Amino acid sequence: MNTETNKKAVVLVSGGLDSATTLAMAIGDGFQCFAIAVDYGQRHRSELDAAKRVTSSMGVSLKVLSLDLRQIGGSALTDDIDVPVDETEGIPVTYVPARNTIMLSLALGYAEVLGANDLFIGVNAVDYSGYPDCRPEFIQAFQTLARLATKTGIEGADITIHTPLIYLTKSEIIKKGAELGVNYSQTVSCYQANEQGKACGKCDSCRIRRDGFKAAGVPDSTRYA
Amino acid sequence: MNTETNKKAVVLVSGGLDSATTLAMAIGDGFQCFAIAVDYGQRHRSELDAAKRVTSSMGVSLKVLSLDLRQIGGSALTDDIDVPVDETEGIPVTYVPARNTIMLSLALGYAEVLGANDLFIGVNAVDYSGYPDCRPEFIQAFQTLARLATKTGIEGADITIHTPLIYLTKSEIIKKGAELGVNYSQTVSCYQANEQGKACGKCDSCRIRRDGFKAAGVPDSTRYA
Repeated sequence: MNTETNKKAVVLVSGGLDSATTLAMAIGDGFQCFAIAVDYGQRHRSELDAAKRVTSSMGVSLKVLSLDLRQIGGSALTDDIDVPVDETEGIPVTYVPARNTIMLSLALGYAEVLGANDLFIGVNAVDYSGYPDCRPEFIQAFQTLARLATKTGIEGADITIHTPLIYLTKSEIIKKGAELGVNYSQTVSCYQANEQGKACGKCDSCRIRRDGFKAAGVPDSTRYA
Repeated sequence: MNTETNKKAVVLVSGGLDSATTLAMAIGDGFQCFAIAVDYGQRHRSELDAAKRVTSSMGVSLKVLSLDLRQIGGSALTDDIDVPVDETEGIPVTYVPARNTIMLSLALGYAEVLGANDLFIGVNAVDYSGYPDCRPEFIQAFQTLARLATKTGIEGADITIHTPLIYLTKSEIIKKGAELGVNYSQTVSCYQANEQGKACGKCDSCRIRRDGFKAAGVPDSTRYA
């Protein structure tokens, strides 16, 4: 806990490893956290169950907003396109159009209602560099937008988008989370986890996660199918 | 029709006078238009019926995305706060937190799926200057964000946010729309229209609209209750 205790923050959570670590870091920094998850019609529905487990175990309230992105389509994560098992060049087919822009916009609206000037999102520019909306310049542009877009912003509040994971490798993220006591068995990263939230162990996301635990020297508590 | 014929554009529509005019202007500029409306739990539900009438009469497809902003609250338009009948100083209580940020984000996702680089939104900085997310600097910041946020943007597409109404007065908007043949009786501006889409004639929005018709010298076809 630092001097920022009692400052409110909105934290985007997905049920995955990165956002669980981000939430633990925001709490560690002394923020009073309000989690928000978006039910956007993702195929990996067990992520939302994971988001509930993670926030509940950290004593944080979770707001789940429904927004069916399948209505606009365009991604393997929301459409009936096969999730790739091998790494692909460039921007992955699992990229959801404008996803982080949409998620951050919703978080911004919630922050304004709560009177929070701080938003946390667990984007990472190292392991997932194929996504345009995970890059620092995107986050910087969103922060500029947020200060112009809101009543609090134009009244002078320094709305800040925190991305504590942005330059960390997966193993550094896992080390950090392990230090903060994150229970990673509660999280789901797999793109095609089963209904019990058990991971396939084969997709890109599973592979990156497993390698991360290995490199961090932290026991892999992932529940595999 | 100009040389831009067959260029796709996503146009945000609300069922109101401004967005109907914006849509007519985008069509007039030769864009192949795809309309998007957001069902955000607005109290004035008849707006969505109006959006269907307006787009249908202009031969444009309409996608309605459901997103229940009542879950995050904070505005007279989504909460049980009385809609003011008199003008208020500063930012009106009818301001929906981050609304245009959210709407533009959804439009951006849809544009990326369609392969459209042009977005139209009927914001206006003259008659509604109390809203932070109707100002030119907000739109400029969103355009910067959009180019960084998307696959098409980082591949070099000049994603453009068009705001043809931004510096027009209400009467200039109505004159322009009347020239383009917009049937304003199909539109609903009233914050508390009844189920048949008939306007109260008393709220801020009704007053600005009625004065606009008067100043434009265009017969007011608004259906009043």
